[in-house]
Amino acid sequence: MSSQQQNHNADLQEKFTLLMRGLGTRTVQYQQNVAASLGLYNNDYISVDILREKGPITAGELSKLTGLATGSVTALIDRLEKIGYVRRQNDPGDRRKVIIVPEYENKEEVYNTYIPLHDAMIELASSYTEEELAFISQFLGKASSVLEDQIQRLSSASNQTSSS
Amino acid sequence: MSSQQQNHNADLQEKFTLLMRGLGTRTVQYQQNVAASLGLYNNDYISVDILREKGPITAGELSKLTGLATGSVTALIDRLEKIGYVRRQNDPGDRRKVIIVPEYENKEEVYNTYIPLHDAMIELASSYTEEELAFISQFLGKASSVLEDQIQRLSSASNQTSSS
Repeated sequence: MSSQQQNHNADLQEKFTLLMRGLGTRTVQYQQNVAASLGLYNNDYISVDILREKGPITAGELSKLTGLATGSVTALIDRLEKIGYVRRQNDPGDRRKVIIVPEYENKEEVYNTYIPLHDAMIELASSYTEEELAFISQFLGKASSVLEDQIQRLSSASNQTSSS
Repeated sequence: MSSQQQNHNADLQEKFTLLMRGLGTRTVQYQQNVAASLGLYNNDYISVDILREKGPITAGELSKLTGLATGSVTALIDRLEKIGYVRRQNDPGDRRKVIIVPEYENKEEVYNTYIPLHDAMIELASSYTEEELAFISQFLGKASSVLEDQIQRLSSASNQTSSS
């Protein structure tokens, strides 16, 4: 490979990281706007979204995933429980544990907020062939894994700091 | 196209929207963990990230992009100015306007926080051919546009509510 070709590749790779970062910023902004339109604090909404994906988890796990202090998470769960978005219940597998169960998927206002994005993403998806979409989906899974690793790294680094 | 084939495509498209949503949740979690590791509030950090991408903007524009109330944004800018992440200055193009200028890119701790993600993304990028990476990059641009449209929609909907 010529050095010119290598430079070109490096440019493409840098461009790719900028595009990923741009997509990330927009994702975060979108979430903030959804939260605002539902009248929720950002952190509250993000926790709701994490619960939706992970299913019932403990307050400690939620604290780790959000990067929020335990006290903040307790107050946050109180607020969400009050408006019926989550409920606390004893873990059926371990009665000493309390888990947070998401309850909001049936809330019409939450569902309605997501429809336009969902429809727009389906429209984008349908502009690709089956093969292309499978390739993009595989890429999205890999990009998610990269982020997951980074979250773990940051989360364990902050645990080490707080226990030292 | 057979109805079985159509179902298969619809499945792939739904799977794609779930993967996008999963990537989105991880992006938001990653940002939260970065904010926590820097000792910043989430909203503060997200605003810093928006400023990094958009360049200097007014407090009003930042309020719109973040979905935060004007008062919250004022307090947020105060906090960021205090730690030297941003500064307020008169807009050179319109002296009546005050713009918020990002100042944090030279901060070593911010730079260092991003290096591992950047390196991991470059590694992911280098696993693709030039042609594949160009295709993925094009897709990322389109996905960003979809989100941008949704942010605009939500932001103008909430403006209509607050002005009615």
